[in-house]
Amino acid sequence: MQDPLHRYEFNSNSILNHVVEPSDMAQFKTILVTGGAGYIGSHCVVDLLETGYEVIAIDNFANAVGDDDGSPALRRVEQITGKKVVFYRADLLNKEQINDIFDKHRVECVIHFAALKAVGESMMQPLLYYQNNLLGMLNLLEVMRSHNCFQLVFSSSCTVYGEPEWLPITEVHPTGKITNVYGRTKYFIEEMLKDLSAADERWNVISLRYFNPVGAHPSGLIGEDPTKEFTNLMPFMAQVALGKKPALTVFGSDYPTPDGTGVRDYIHVMDLAAGHVAALRMISEKHIGLKVYNLGTGRGVSVKELVTVFERVTGAKVPLKYEARRHGDITAMWADPTLAKEELGWTSQYTVEEMCTDFWRWQTMNPDGYPKKAMKPNHIVNGNS
Amino acid sequence: MQDPLHRYEFNSNSILNHVVEPSDMAQFKTILVTGGAGYIGSHCVVDLLETGYEVIAIDNFANAVGDDDGSPALRRVEQITGKKVVFYRADLLNKEQINDIFDKHRVECVIHFAALKAVGESMMQPLLYYQNNLLGMLNLLEVMRSHNCFQLVFSSSCTVYGEPEWLPITEVHPTGKITNVYGRTKYFIEEMLKDLSAADERWNVISLRYFNPVGAHPSGLIGEDPTKEFTNLMPFMAQVALGKKPALTVFGSDYPTPDGTGVRDYIHVMDLAAGHVAALRMISEKHIGLKVYNLGTGRGVSVKELVTVFERVTGAKVPLKYEARRHGDITAMWADPTLAKEELGWTSQYTVEEMCTDFWRWQTMNPDGYPKKAMKPNHIVNGNS
Repeated sequence: MQDPLHRYEFNSNSILNHVVEPSDMAQFKTILVTGGAGYIGSHCVVDLLETGYEVIAIDNFANAVGDDDGSPALRRVEQITGKKVVFYRADLLNKEQINDIFDKHRVECVIHFAALKAVGESMMQPLLYYQNNLLGMLNLLEVMRSHNCFQLVFSSSCTVYGEPEWLPITEVHPTGKITNVYGRTKYFIEEMLKDLSAADERWNVISLRYFNPVGAHPSGLIGEDPTKEFTNLMPFMAQVALGKKPALTVFGSDYPTPDGTGVRDYIHVMDLAAGHVAALRMISEKHIGLKVYNLGTGRGVSVKELVTVFERVTGAKVPLKYEARRHGDITAMWADPTLAKEELGWTSQYTVEEMCTDFWRWQTMNPDGYPKKAMKPNHIVNGNS
Repeated sequence: MQDPLHRYEFNSNSILNHVVEPSDMAQFKTILVTGGAGYIGSHCVVDLLETGYEVIAIDNFANAVGDDDGSPALRRVEQITGKKVVFYRADLLNKEQINDIFDKHRVECVIHFAALKAVGESMMQPLLYYQNNLLGMLNLLEVMRSHNCFQLVFSSSCTVYGEPEWLPITEVHPTGKITNVYGRTKYFIEEMLKDLSAADERWNVISLRYFNPVGAHPSGLIGEDPTKEFTNLMPFMAQVALGKKPALTVFGSDYPTPDGTGVRDYIHVMDLAAGHVAALRMISEKHIGLKVYNLGTGRGVSVKELVTVFERVTGAKVPLKYEARRHGDITAMWADPTLAKEELGWTSQYTVEEMCTDFWRWQTMNPDGYPKKAMKPNHIVNGNS
């Protein structure tokens, strides 16, 4: 057994001068993070470790670089925090694998990031998305229940709102009129979780509806490293700034917005990570059944505005190429984050400038993303050190 | 190989004098019926066999009587039709089993009845319902695709409409505001099927939204034999008429309907079966992508009206016991069946009197339901005769 105080020791190797207050400490110790080697997952693991949690991360490397030796992203997480992560290469579709992990560790809470997430791909391969995202969730829920683990933080998305009926979007906004398959998998899971917590009061679940995650850890050591062809704005913009792509394609310049381009609520991935730690604290402290929170800044930023800020803080040029609107794209969407502030005590801290600076630091330090090998992992792979 | 003409021979043992017209013959030969031993499934198999199809039925006996020797219901189906059914005891959650069946038979179309269907149970065990109904469908779709079988008739339900915004309900009525988990599984699957047929034009799918199936085959040999505690009106009413239960519980007598009781669109199960044969013909004749049809009579009948007719045609007494409305129950709902008439050439034929008479015949001939053994099945079990 590790000395429980170990969790309170501030790690002197940490790059971030993150001060851990005793009030940050929830009563849970061991958190299972699915999709822990991914973009949001790895940033969340940093915050969890620095807050004092012990983390078991799993990933099937569908969306993240890694192999049987482990994850380069989690290697970097350990570099940042000076702490160890227990890692399993595991797939939620393989229920026995998940069951074995729960047999081996006393998991007190799960943060479930793992999912396929490419909107365009989801429209072309709906069966793959339904199978992976729904079945992955159902397997996880079943294994959790059979191990008496009923605490869950679920990665939902603002896509569940569809085309907004009002702005900013509050959590009571209707859901269900969704324009893509990816979003439908998130919506279906939210509905399942509602039914589950209504039927069995042992469940204690928070669904976090992310707006548009961007940025990277301020160290530049971890960030977004898409393994598939990507169309997300910031990675694309950075590739253009690096000269790897000729121009940033902007879909639609005739939207009814101030400058004609689409408006989104970009949120720094470190703010998102902090939102998860806040959610964990909430479900460790009280029984809430199921609650849903927006994680956004509450500010809408247009594509052109984001490009302007990015060019200013990076000094790089991002030529634009305009194309027609994409079917299913939404004009403008931003969060009302009041509920998360009032109930979770969480608000976003990072500015748009920091989102751009931090993403750019990551990109310039790692122009080709992560090294393709975990580089002698010192994290514990498959439970064996 | 069986002589293809075999399928055209009219079976002289048939109890129903069902005349098969050449125009009834679709170009498919082999139909896989999931949940084929169940209430609606077994009636549909009768119609399929009499129309000239070859049927492979599978069932896991979650909702139907049967064992490794086969299904008493399908034994009776063979008695009615003089034809053989190939039967497998198989579970859609076991993808390998389903795959083996598709390897063994050239399935040209699937009629997918198999699902858990008890509304009350679904609210108490949502995870079970989501796992069984969604995963069963996803497994089936994947196996179908891998065997180049893209023709599907899906059992949906009028529950997908939720509380009606207008009556009679047309297929364009909004879906998604559903009051129970069972209905949500049907709605989710419909959404998946829409996405699937939009993404891959090889799919050719009809989703049939059943209203309230009642009645039984006019022979009295097959009918509804619930294996679990049931609350469906007609089986309950028949139990009361048989003296097995003291009174019929009517939930709500203060609804804003002519006599204060809930109004539904009851449809004879033989009409429902004919609707499936009509749907099969449609998807064998043309490519439609995905279509949705109501299967109802277009007539709303109150609980009290149904009881009155039942008492008249059976001569039995059904004492009523009134209780409060059940949460989530709907006041009144009946179908607009115009679209099925125009496009499938299908309309309901059976009267409410016949629904009651036929159900009563089944109940009096089989007061304890099916014999608990298949009684030396002559149907082909697990593909072996």
